[in-house]
Amino acid sequence: MTVQNKKKIFNDPVYGFITIPDDLHFDIIEHQYFQRLRRIKQLGMSHYVFPGALHTRFHHSLGAMYLMQQAVQVLRSKGKIITKEEGKAVSLAILLHDIGHGPYSHTLEQSIVKGISHEKLSMLIMKNLNQEHNSQLDEAIEIFCGRHPKNYLSNLVSSQLDMDRLDYLKRDSFFSGVSEGTINAERLITMLDVVDNELVIEAKGIYSVENFIVARRLMYWQVYLHKTVLSAECMLMNILRRAKYLANQGVELFATPALCYFLQHEINYTDFEENEMNLVYFTQLDDYDIFAAIKVWMEHKDNILSYLCNCIVNRNLFKVELSKEEIDPERIAFIEKQIRSKFEVNDEEISYLLYVGTTSNSAYDPNQPNINILYKDGTVQNISDAADQLNISVLTTPVIKHYLCFPK
Amino acid sequence: MTVQNKKKIFNDPVYGFITIPDDLHFDIIEHQYFQRLRRIKQLGMSHYVFPGALHTRFHHSLGAMYLMQQAVQVLRSKGKIITKEEGKAVSLAILLHDIGHGPYSHTLEQSIVKGISHEKLSMLIMKNLNQEHNSQLDEAIEIFCGRHPKNYLSNLVSSQLDMDRLDYLKRDSFFSGVSEGTINAERLITMLDVVDNELVIEAKGIYSVENFIVARRLMYWQVYLHKTVLSAECMLMNILRRAKYLANQGVELFATPALCYFLQHEINYTDFEENEMNLVYFTQLDDYDIFAAIKVWMEHKDNILSYLCNCIVNRNLFKVELSKEEIDPERIAFIEKQIRSKFEVNDEEISYLLYVGTTSNSAYDPNQPNINILYKDGTVQNISDAADQLNISVLTTPVIKHYLCFPK
Amino acid sequence: MTVQNKKKIFNDPVYGFITIPDDLHFDIIEHQYFQRLRRIKQLGMSHYVFPGALHTRFHHSLGAMYLMQQAVQVLRSKGKIITKEEGKAVSLAILLHDIGHGPYSHTLEQSIVKGISHEKLSMLIMKNLNQEHNSQLDEAIEIFCGRHPKNYLSNLVSSQLDMDRLDYLKRDSFFSGVSEGTINAERLITMLDVVDNELVIEAKGIYSVENFIVARRLMYWQVYLHKTVLSAECMLMNILRRAKYLANQGVELFATPALCYFLQHEINYTDFEENEMNLVYFTQLDDYDIFAAIKVWMEHKDNILSYLCNCIVNRNLFKVELSKEEIDPERIAFIEKQIRSKFEVNDEEISYLLYVGTTSNSAYDPNQPNINILYKDGTVQNISDAADQLNISVLTTPVIKHYLCFPK
Amino acid sequence: MTVQNKKKIFNDPVYGFITIPDDLHFDIIEHQYFQRLRRIKQLGMSHYVFPGALHTRFHHSLGAMYLMQQAVQVLRSKGKIITKEEGKAVSLAILLHDIGHGPYSHTLEQSIVKGISHEKLSMLIMKNLNQEHNSQLDEAIEIFCGRHPKNYLSNLVSSQLDMDRLDYLKRDSFFSGVSEGTINAERLITMLDVVDNELVIEAKGIYSVENFIVARRLMYWQVYLHKTVLSAECMLMNILRRAKYLANQGVELFATPALCYFLQHEINYTDFEENEMNLVYFTQLDDYDIFAAIKVWMEHKDNILSYLCNCIVNRNLFKVELSKEEIDPERIAFIEKQIRSKFEVNDEEISYLLYVGTTSNSAYDPNQPNINILYKDGTVQNISDAADQLNISVLTTPVIKHYLCFPK
Repeated sequence: MTVQNKKKIFNDPVYGFITIPDDLHFDIIEHQYFQRLRRIKQLGMSHYVFPGALHTRFHHSLGAMYLMQQAVQVLRSKGKIITKEEGKAVSLAILLHDIGHGPYSHTLEQSIVKGISHEKLSMLIMKNLNQEHNSQLDEAIEIFCGRHPKNYLSNLVSSQLDMDRLDYLKRDSFFSGVSEGTINAERLITMLDVVDNELVIEAKGIYSVENFIVARRLMYWQVYLHKTVLSAECMLMNILRRAKYLANQGVELFATPALCYFLQHEINYTDFEENEMNLVYFTQLDDYDIFAAIKVWMEHKDNILSYLCNCIVNRNLFKVELSKEEIDPERIAFIEKQIRSKFEVNDEEISYLLYVGTTSNSAYDPNQPNINILYKDGTVQNISDAADQLNISVLTTPVIKHYLCFPK
Repeated sequence: MTVQNKKKIFNDPVYGFITIPDDLHFDIIEHQYFQRLRRIKQLGMSHYVFPGALHTRFHHSLGAMYLMQQAVQVLRSKGKIITKEEGKAVSLAILLHDIGHGPYSHTLEQSIVKGISHEKLSMLIMKNLNQEHNSQLDEAIEIFCGRHPKNYLSNLVSSQLDMDRLDYLKRDSFFSGVSEGTINAERLITMLDVVDNELVIEAKGIYSVENFIVARRLMYWQVYLHKTVLSAECMLMNILRRAKYLANQGVELFATPALCYFLQHEINYTDFEENEMNLVYFTQLDDYDIFAAIKVWMEHKDNILSYLCNCIVNRNLFKVELSKEEIDPERIAFIEKQIRSKFEVNDEEISYLLYVGTTSNSAYDPNQPNINILYKDGTVQNISDAADQLNISVLTTPVIKHYLCFPK
Repeated sequence: MTVQNKKKIFNDPVYGFITIPDDLHFDIIEHQYFQRLRRIKQLGMSHYVFPGALHTRFHHSLGAMYLMQQAVQVLRSKGKIITKEEGKAVSLAILLHDIGHGPYSHTLEQSIVKGISHEKLSMLIMKNLNQEHNSQLDEAIEIFCGRHPKNYLSNLVSSQLDMDRLDYLKRDSFFSGVSEGTINAERLITMLDVVDNELVIEAKGIYSVENFIVARRLMYWQVYLHKTVLSAECMLMNILRRAKYLANQGVELFATPALCYFLQHEINYTDFEENEMNLVYFTQLDDYDIFAAIKVWMEHKDNILSYLCNCIVNRNLFKVELSKEEIDPERIAFIEKQIRSKFEVNDEEISYLLYVGTTSNSAYDPNQPNINILYKDGTVQNISDAADQLNISVLTTPVIKHYLCFPK
Repeated sequence: MTVQNKKKIFNDPVYGFITIPDDLHFDIIEHQYFQRLRRIKQLGMSHYVFPGALHTRFHHSLGAMYLMQQAVQVLRSKGKIITKEEGKAVSLAILLHDIGHGPYSHTLEQSIVKGISHEKLSMLIMKNLNQEHNSQLDEAIEIFCGRHPKNYLSNLVSSQLDMDRLDYLKRDSFFSGVSEGTINAERLITMLDVVDNELVIEAKGIYSVENFIVARRLMYWQVYLHKTVLSAECMLMNILRRAKYLANQGVELFATPALCYFLQHEINYTDFEENEMNLVYFTQLDDYDIFAAIKVWMEHKDNILSYLCNCIVNRNLFKVELSKEEIDPERIAFIEKQIRSKFEVNDEEISYLLYVGTTSNSAYDPNQPNINILYKDGTVQNISDAADQLNISVLTTPVIKHYLCFPK
């Protein structure tokens, strides 16, 4: 009877039905730490340009788990021995890979807590859950950390062709409506194999890999780093920065207790390890804490804060100028002067209204483990060396763009 | 230059591209009242069952506007004269038809402000916007109110086959992943015509109409009135009811100023008409105010409130028993007793833990204007009288279900 | 190595990938009898209205096999014991269920060979293949004939909710572009169960069943029995009838040897059983024999034949008048007179230019085994008795339409 | 009334509805020359690998016309003046661009008539239709030939980003089920503009262009030049070649009169120009003539012919070896010897069983007019020079593959 209750199927417009395979998965999904992901948008502020892109880390994590189950089945059908326990572990590892994301995903990754990546926080939370579940997550954690003897299981969780990327490209493309971003996850998974303990892809899938890399590139420039999205995310970060500054000055700010805590304290990684309360507070935070506060701050007496909040809530976003070269200091000076003529701001305050920075993307990163191609004769080759292919080396070079962002 | 700025295209996974036709539309969409719809989920708590169903009233309104433009084009191609101004007006009317929705759409329609439908509030806000825009919305308002001489324009905005329904069925089906709910909006629109100033549908579209009615029925029972959704929405309403009760008692509650205002005051329609501030506060409310507060109330000292809030945030939803007959009073008494054995509650408090009510749906409402079928010989017939068709009369009878909802 | 060769995956725009499960399936699919289905359009002449509807019995058979594999997996996951052999047998049974179809599927079912349904021919061919494959199809044949002890396996192959219907509705809707015909096969299959050796469907799938029945009805009237399709198919039948008549008179006709054989001989079921050559000839026939001949017959000296052939090749189709009542004899006489004034035809010949007949469809046939609904309390109920449902009884009444079909 | 009859809508699973804009389009589509395209598969023998790929030149031509209407509308909305007549002409030009295709499209392009491209035949047929339609196609022909003063109209019909390619990639991807081949035609068209009388694409569409080029490359290698497809098409060509050879020897062959004519006569371009009957015969040919004959030739007494025909009908296709280098003559000799040991063939006959050749593809051809990118500052740049883009030059180099094809 308990079993029946825990047999659950999710409707997913992307894959149809997603089935929860067992009780442990079910309990993890029901856990408040995981349920929190329902309230964290996968794509931060991208929905300001793509109104459908409201899907969450919760949905993405389920989707990646679904693909993982397909991948395990494919590898088994090719004779790789993946035990029942390993299958469960690798599935749990991907299910939890994003559990450490904070509000607005990557957008505020460095604003709420500085210098701590979401992966590190995922690790902390997984350990926490592992204690609650009698070490049943031991093997999942090994895989997540890349310490599992079957290294290809770790590749499935994190590599340049992992189930994370396959799901997010497909899902982000689906919900944003940017149909060119679609990849054929099913085909890519069907082509997976293992050589020397590493994940490889059969040669006949090579054009699908090419397509996958180019689709990812397109999604970066067209969606993730879209000018308007960049602007909204810069503004969001600076709102948080300003609020923290004010909190530091003792200024009162409307905020939920959890947000209040992070406005008032600068928490580092050691703090998380040493004081469990930090994690408790962190896992109470989500998009709702942030945006509810921002809406109230529209009326805050600090002009900088209320100005930024009004702009973001009513979508009067800053203008972005992108450039391949470093921004000309004269241009910066000119814009700065313009801002000063419109706003009464001191030297410190101008930094909240004028953002200069860089954004970059390499579709395929040569410093990360390669995507390896398995030929019919058994040889394996790094895709960037594969002849007559798309010049992957070109895609390898990170494209750096400099931006200037300021009020219209 | 202004024109260029105001030429905007939205990516929509449902229809592809949605183009904003002119400056007035653009300005309305940019208005904070309309931007607010970005923060109101179309389907309330349905995403607790269908994790993709996070789309908003903002997106739906744009979609309905898109379909309206198709419909106007079809009718013109059939020789109906719709002036440029009328085309603009009917498009604005549908764009704004949901502007009066409050947080969580229908879910809290009677909880934030009692006895005022969202249509009435839409009307108030449209009038407000009309003042701001020099009466440019006059004709749109006439259409919205059903007072326009070309009555079929009003039918396009509100009838049993209006652009609102066409969009929401298609959109809700898309984002929930309940593919059977899909309708062929394009075909239905292509079959539209006008007879005697009323919208009709060509006879060869009759099977599409049937399908549309049955799809709507399916969406009601499978999505909108899904047991789990029903439970979540009942709980949400009762959380608000409890919070209002406590606020009335002078108990302090964390809330944004706008939410605070509605917790502390019982606003009726006359209040809205007489004091503009009420509308100002109302248009500050959205899903974020509600859920941010609920998260904080999880720690509230009122046991009822904190219990309900914990349940909804962590998705420990109440159990629902549905029945075609009225719930047996003995069953209610039995459950009540069980609750009392678990919770220390007085007679008044039990009402927050045990909900008895009815929910109903008629796929096709005979009291509303009919869907009329135009035959090749020029005759027009109400679809429920059309021979050899699905027994529409059966669909006409509202299906009433009684429910009992209580802690597991 | 052989195994590798026989591991095959088909790309299917409907389901993604279809995997051939084993060598026997592979060999059957490679067999010329099965390959022939590549040349038989699933929907006869429907592509004259829906230009995408060119998909074949081959593709449909693979699709139905795919769904069968899903169904078997679902039933096993619910504790039903289906042995490996039974799983194989039921999959082969559905794979071969349409192997007896002749050119243009149902259109010419009674024109090439009279009085023999395609199911009977499927049976004969399956027996034939069984001999070639050392009785490995014994169990598949038992299931196909409804003689297998696990009767629900036969239900999966042939019943009102069998894998045949699920695939063809989904596939025909997909390729014709009539999106309202789409059903949620995945959901329906997920809801399957077995009670008392019969297939049932869980109560929470009831709206999907409703939708399935209504979608089927829509596909019938909008696609399968579309006026223009009806006209094309009547003409095709009469072309064959005329050709047979002429062949009988000793008139020479261009035709492939196989077609020639059936023009010259009237083969009945006993002939098929007694003389193997009849089946050999039959399995050489496909759409190509028919249409290549028709194209040549456009220049035939018989005026009736060449007229009909010109009409169908150049898509100058006859007009169709549909009516719920029997066609008024006066109307028939009037049309007949008109035809005579345009064409010089004798009393026998007029029957090739004027077709009077009926076409009918009942979305749900009460004389066939029921679709049974399994409630949570374990009770089972015929869907047409299930309360508060669509009045299935209405759908049960076959809709009969009378038609008159004649040159424009 | 006539107008009503000629107002026609096609269901298209790719775009939804395709509307025939006027009577002339309607009459052209009804013409037997155009109807013939219903019987010519867009992708020759690709359906042997992708069973859904049965769509025709008819469907593709309608689809390209649909996209053309969108493109004209976009350009007009950007202030380009395209008169009603020009809009009609460019639409007719794309509608007819493939009218000269023979059976199995490209596969037999050089087998039925040598040295005449389908474009030349399209031109001849368009002239022919123009005579029948009182020169109403004059302007369409000018556009088709690239002689129209508004050269960008010709670009829309034929260039590296024309409506032909946009439709066929989208359509071929759809029907084959190779989802990675999908492109965003709507977005590409929305980005179109005109500079200096040439079609350009706005810079913000650059990633969609990249994606389009890579998708095209993928479709080439994965679908159009798939090994098995290559094999089937080589075999088909050689069957025709053998049949022609035998016909030349006076051997009798079953064939429709039209096919017979081309087996017996070698028709060159001058013949087409000088003797109208050649075009009449040509326009009687389609896939049905070819495959019906092949099926009969399975029993032909010429062993080569019957062997090849049996192989192709029953899908026992030849093996293909692909190589980046020229095939080693020793390998060829070895295979040749093997064939001789299995088949009794003389030196001439071996060429029907062993094919050595090359196949090539450049995703983007630098010798054709460029795809030009329009930047915000008004400058225009060839996409292959656009910085930080995919190294288009790599895609420019044609990939040549050498093949060896012979019986398994």
